[in-house]
Order: sequence, then C-alpha cells, then structure tokens
Amino acid sequence: MDQQLSFLREIDKLKNVMRKSPLIDRSRKENSAEHSWHLAMYALILSESSNQEIDINRVIRMLLIHDIVEIDAGDHPIHESANRENQELLEQKAAQRIFGLLPESQGKELIELWQEFEAGTSDDAVFAKALDRMQPLIHNIATDGGTWAEANVTKAQVRERYGPTINVGSFSLWSKAEELVEKHFE
Amino acid sequence: MDQQLSFLREIDKLKNVMRKSPLIDRSRKENSAEHSWHLAMYALILSESSNQEIDINRVIRMLLIHDIVEIDAGDHPIHESANRENQELLEQKAAQRIFGLLPESQGKELIELWQEFEAGTSDDAVFAKALDRMQPLIHNIATDGGTWAEANVTKAQVRERYGPTINVGSFSLWSKAEELVEKHFE
Repeated sequence: MDQQLSFLREIDKLKNVMRKSPLIDRSRKENSAEHSWHLAMYALILSESSNQEIDINRVIRMLLIHDIVEIDAGDHPIHESANRENQELLEQKAAQRIFGLLPESQGKELIELWQEFEAGTSDDAVFAKALDRMQPLIHNIATDGGTWAEANVTKAQVRERYGPTINVGSFSLWSKAEELVEKHFE
Repeated sequence: MDQQLSFLREIDKLKNVMRKSPLIDRSRKENSAEHSWHLAMYALILSESSNQEIDINRVIRMLLIHDIVEIDAGDHPIHESANRENQELLEQKAAQRIFGLLPESQGKELIELWQEFEAGTSDDAVFAKALDRMQPLIHNIATDGGTWAEANVTKAQVRERYGPTINVGSFSLWSKAEELVEKHFE
C-alpha cells in the first residue's frame, strides 16, 4: 500500500501540467488532470457512438491514465511541430518511472494499457483517441476558435488534423464535428 | 448526440468549482473536476483494499460523477457546519437539471448512480465514500496539515470525522491512515 499511495501522491502533479486548450468559459487553460476526467466522462456518455464494439470500462481506464506521462514529458499539442521521436522516448521513460512506483504487476498492467493507447490500433484505443481529439475541437468551437485562432489554423487543416482520428473511431461523432466545423468557419 | 454534447459542455464548469483541499505542492487549492479524476485513479489502484467485494467499474463511474451537482450547489467540506437539509435539496435539484440535459434514459441512470453514492449504503458506494475521505487526508498530511491546520482540527476530530467512513470501506486503508495521522500529530 505504501507504493500505491506514493504513486497516488506523485500523479497529483498532473494537475499542474497545462494544456493549450481553453476552458469553455475562457477563464484559463485546461490542465491535464481535469482533461482526463472530462475525457472519461466523454467515454461514459458517448460509448454507443463507437464504430466498433468496445469494452467501455477499458476505454475509461485508458483515458484516466493516458496523459500521466506528461508529468515528466510535458504536453505537446497537435498544432506544434515537435521532435516526435525524442518525445516518444521521453514518454516511454516517464511511463517506466511513474508507473514503476506501483507494485510490479500493477505497474506493468498500466504501462501496457498506456502503450495500447499510444499504439492506437486496438478498437478500445481507436475510440479513446477519437474522444481525445473530439474534446478540444468542442472547446475550440465553444470559444470562438480557441487554439485554432491563436495558431491561424484553417478549416482544411482542422479537417485534416481531426478528421481521420475521430472518423475511424466514430462516424457519427465526425459527422457532428463536420457540421460544427462548417458553421464555425462560416 | 446534441443533448450529450450539451451535457459534456456544461460539466466543463466543474473545473472552476474550488475545494478547500490544497494540491500536494501547495501551489493552489484543488478543483472538483481534477479531484474526481484523482479519486477515479484511487479506485483503480486501491480496488483490492475494499472490505466488500465491489464492482470496480461502477465505483469508478460513481466517483467520476459524484461531484457534478456542485456546479449548481457548491462544495461543502466536512469541517464546515452547514445547513445539511437545504444543501441536500439544492443537490437534488442540481442533479435533475444537469443530468436532465442528457437523453432521458441516460440521465436517469446517472441520477440513480449519484443517488446511490449519496445514500452510501451499497457496497460500491461505501468504498467510493471511503476513497473520497481518504484522498483529502493524504493531501492534508502531505502539506503539513492543510485544511486541518487552517481550521485547528485536532487529532481526535480527524479520527472521528475520517475514521468511520474510511474504516467501513477498507480496514487496511484506515489502518494505514491511522499510522499516518499518528505520525503527523506527533
């Protein structure tokens, strides 16, 4: 239990990892801990929108832990051209350190779940990634453009950067997103 | 889907409901959205500490939604003597309004899950409530007393206010908590 409580204390730091996305009331940027909560709620509410049959409890777990590596590796938004390879190494190292605080079998299980999310190939991971792309889109539209306005992102770029990931997880979510994006750029 | 997205936009407000508990790095107080994420992680990590056999996926869902009513009704910590009856009315009204944004059957399901948590009698709710009491205890100890120091809470009051709720959900968690509380008040 001491190891488990150490881990639970350590991940408190995710509350100070700031994302680029604004809150809908624009009072400040979102942090990665509350973002993870919001995504778990997206999964809970939108599970029936998945193209594939999924295990929603696994999707929720995946989303709860998907950003924990950012405690060491930081948040790197999709509109930022970063050194992807180096970033992946940093994140793998972070996963080993942070989940490594847990009892061995429990840590291993969560590292594997996180790696499954990162790989993005299983049905559960595909849907989780679709939600992780959908939520900031909703926030950007609700805040007159949010990070798109800041980075001068065009409609074509939005379609290109959000479309494939959302659509492969949920046709109905992407169809709704397209409608919202059209209206926004008008 | 429009109703579901309205709900998911509305609950963004939970990120601005501030609790009394500090973050472990003491940089600021915790908000109820990131607190809900942290508790879902507590459940995921500590599920085997429950006294009773529980459905951990239901516990996680319960904890994800347990504070959503605070968007309308505010956060009322245990060291504050409030009008409990009035508060309960406010929370019931909040549940109807906020979960009422969802499609009817989905909203009803979540209201019932929240009411089960509030009643605190099912095994799942008992364990969820134990975790909801354990997490701020950990934060107070990690921050030289946190809200206890602010409100001059004594060791006897800590034992009385945290003990029963934690112990009925998990003997092993309360035993660990007692050890930490003893050391803290020395």
